[in-house]
Amino acid sequence: MREELLQLIPDESRVITETIEKKYLSDNLGRKIGTAKALVFPVSTEEVSKIMRFAYEKNIPVTPRGAGTNLVGSTVPTGEGIVLDLSRLNHILEVDRETFTATVEPGVILEDFQKYVEAQGLFYPPDPGEKKASIGGNISTNAGGMRAVRYGVTRDYVMGLELVLADGSVITVGSKNRKDTTGLDLKDMVIGSEGTLAVITKCVLKLIPKPEKSLSLLVGYPSLKTGIESVPKLFQANVNPTAIEFIERKVVALGEEFLGLSFPIPEAVAYLLLTFDGSAEEIDNHIKTVDHVVKEAGAFDVQILDDPQLLQNVWKIRGCLVTAVEAVSEQEPLDIVVPINRIDAFVNFVNELEQQTGMRMISFGHAGDGNVHLCVVRGERDDATWEKELDENLSILYHKAYELGGLASGEHGIGLSKQKYMVRATNPINLALMKRVKEAFDEKRILNAGISYDV
Amino acid sequence: MREELLQLIPDESRVITETIEKKYLSDNLGRKIGTAKALVFPVSTEEVSKIMRFAYEKNIPVTPRGAGTNLVGSTVPTGEGIVLDLSRLNHILEVDRETFTATVEPGVILEDFQKYVEAQGLFYPPDPGEKKASIGGNISTNAGGMRAVRYGVTRDYVMGLELVLADGSVITVGSKNRKDTTGLDLKDMVIGSEGTLAVITKCVLKLIPKPEKSLSLLVGYPSLKTGIESVPKLFQANVNPTAIEFIERKVVALGEEFLGLSFPIPEAVAYLLLTFDGSAEEIDNHIKTVDHVVKEAGAFDVQILDDPQLLQNVWKIRGCLVTAVEAVSEQEPLDIVVPINRIDAFVNFVNELEQQTGMRMISFGHAGDGNVHLCVVRGERDDATWEKELDENLSILYHKAYELGGLASGEHGIGLSKQKYMVRATNPINLALMKRVKEAFDEKRILNAGISYDV
Repeated sequence: MREELLQLIPDESRVITETIEKKYLSDNLGRKIGTAKALVFPVSTEEVSKIMRFAYEKNIPVTPRGAGTNLVGSTVPTGEGIVLDLSRLNHILEVDRETFTATVEPGVILEDFQKYVEAQGLFYPPDPGEKKASIGGNISTNAGGMRAVRYGVTRDYVMGLELVLADGSVITVGSKNRKDTTGLDLKDMVIGSEGTLAVITKCVLKLIPKPEKSLSLLVGYPSLKTGIESVPKLFQANVNPTAIEFIERKVVALGEEFLGLSFPIPEAVAYLLLTFDGSAEEIDNHIKTVDHVVKEAGAFDVQILDDPQLLQNVWKIRGCLVTAVEAVSEQEPLDIVVPINRIDAFVNFVNELEQQTGMRMISFGHAGDGNVHLCVVRGERDDATWEKELDENLSILYHKAYELGGLASGEHGIGLSKQKYMVRATNPINLALMKRVKEAFDEKRILNAGISYDV
Repeated sequence: MREELLQLIPDESRVITETIEKKYLSDNLGRKIGTAKALVFPVSTEEVSKIMRFAYEKNIPVTPRGAGTNLVGSTVPTGEGIVLDLSRLNHILEVDRETFTATVEPGVILEDFQKYVEAQGLFYPPDPGEKKASIGGNISTNAGGMRAVRYGVTRDYVMGLELVLADGSVITVGSKNRKDTTGLDLKDMVIGSEGTLAVITKCVLKLIPKPEKSLSLLVGYPSLKTGIESVPKLFQANVNPTAIEFIERKVVALGEEFLGLSFPIPEAVAYLLLTFDGSAEEIDNHIKTVDHVVKEAGAFDVQILDDPQLLQNVWKIRGCLVTAVEAVSEQEPLDIVVPINRIDAFVNFVNELEQQTGMRMISFGHAGDGNVHLCVVRGERDDATWEKELDENLSILYHKAYELGGLASGEHGIGLSKQKYMVRATNPINLALMKRVKEAFDEKRILNAGISYDV
């Protein structure tokens, strides 16, 4: 394959066929290592197109990847194919202040892009925990994150895409227009499809004006239940929060230990961490309302995080939780989503399951949108026990999530690791339809072939 | 067919096979009259499913319809098929205050639904001009309307759908969850698909808290150009408008005459009509900024529409424009969308074209989102001349729109009447992909078979 690829990309440093580094065969967790014959680093749409045309003609599987920060094996290649690394397609091509859009290549890193537009008084709201993810990856998993409560998810900020299809054709879907009912919506089908339908080579993103001010607030509760139950009351009170995170004290303690920092209101059993955006006046009004609502609902302390150092520490601790857990033991990260009025039911269930099965489960996450991040912790289990007990617990957890009207994934995607549970819980007619749509885009099933919706 | 349909729906009043009223064979304009063998009024998902299974087995075309308010022939049946009228599936099934969702049947009328939720302190933002449209119809055309500037379009408020597929299977897509990356996004593919992919039988809609206050503002300009050019300045000033409508004085005059009402600032050549939602304080701040920005940009008068009678008159005139034009002469309504920084270029082009061709063209619309409503007026032309000159002018208009980065339809859809122009302007590879997706949902092509994306 080497010679053929070098004809398409005549640069030896960008066509790797000997000893491919493991990180290119895996995801962020690095546990599942896939197989591939070649790793290529295209630097243009044209090169991507050439590679796809070649792969299509020869029936070679292709696994696209961005920064490889995913947690579910969606960048683990299968078979004897090509890993298509898009990280060098990493230019911010345009910031169009008149239409409030930016056009970027898929390999642009989220935090770089956020900084770039914020320096110009603009704002890109999607804000998943992993800031080193690529924009293309964010689109492929429809990344959500903290600020989804107010601003929505990545899907809401993707206006257009340039795509290379499985056969190498290049098309654009969507546009810079704010409304569109001009034929079928191919763009939204590609968003969140984890590289299974097409390769993204350009992204037109929606921007908004940068909020005047942003302020965070920490609320301490005597129990998780009290905290979670005050969330709908906050919505009813019309305070328009940007983020509402929930964390249990026992989880915070892991983060404190990991970073050597301390978190305010240590006597709390659970916290809500809220952010508000807007003018100083609006935020001030909202905070007054919040103070009243949460105290009515049983909170015992509200702390405004207006000290920059304190604010940074709190968000650092919130940000390190997965890593802090990972430092203690291998863990399986879940991102189950449930309707916002079912979070307490789900989290209580998790805590009971932990008691019953002895499998440690650490939960925290996005209370404002029902997206629970759950770390199932391996501890001292040997391989066979871990595999068996993890599967048992995941089966129970996913079953419960679906029973509550929830779904397997809010923002991580299905990848290789959640597929089985998703397929099991999904109507076979939906799966069959997904499969037909997949084939409408990629009849030879060469794109990210490991992910399937097979009934 | 009568006997077979009566076995599925054993109610003679709901199965019509003799003399089908013309309105069920057409759209809101009533110009194109289609053909059908039967008109049925199912009252349950089960009945819809039975009809689809029957139609699928016998290869009978089916044209779903809601309130029939569309303007592009998307409810004009073709062939010897069944018109599936969903207007009796018209129940509001649930308003779930905890998850901020409502579940409704597709035949529920938009204005009824808006009133119902607003009485409970909730708000359904999508607000197309036609309030007698059905929710199912709004979803099928991804209706936009006035408030899209702030709140987005119908797509942004559809959380889940119950669908009957072409073969009669019943599935749900989406859910009450705020985030979702659990497999391919079938829901968004159906939104805006004009009844070509599936029949919608239930809709889970997102609600938000009702804004505390809403205030409209009329700004008079010495020219349309000055008015349109102040729109991006309003966005830059971060005033977060709900709606920004533009109207030329000559169009307002038609509305005034039609309704016998008068519009403020009669000396203006063009207007922007803005709405703001929020607390009294927020609105007040925004209005101060707007006053400053628009006067800097050349406006000569700003009038706050805080008198209820005046407000009503202004919106009545804005609301009647299509009808006011229609009263003078037959007209072809367009809803071309262009990027928000191209509206002045497009509207200026329209005015020049009018001068050159002698075809009267009346433009107004959603300046905040680039969605230009254009009425091409027939006047005294005979049938053949009208058909010929309309086609010539539409070809020129759509060509210009696409040249500016725009699209054939922002919110009306393609239907039968815009198909030709959309197909002509769209990449054949995109069209082929749309066709394959259509077939993934409806292999026999029985659903709304008149609409096709044939290359």
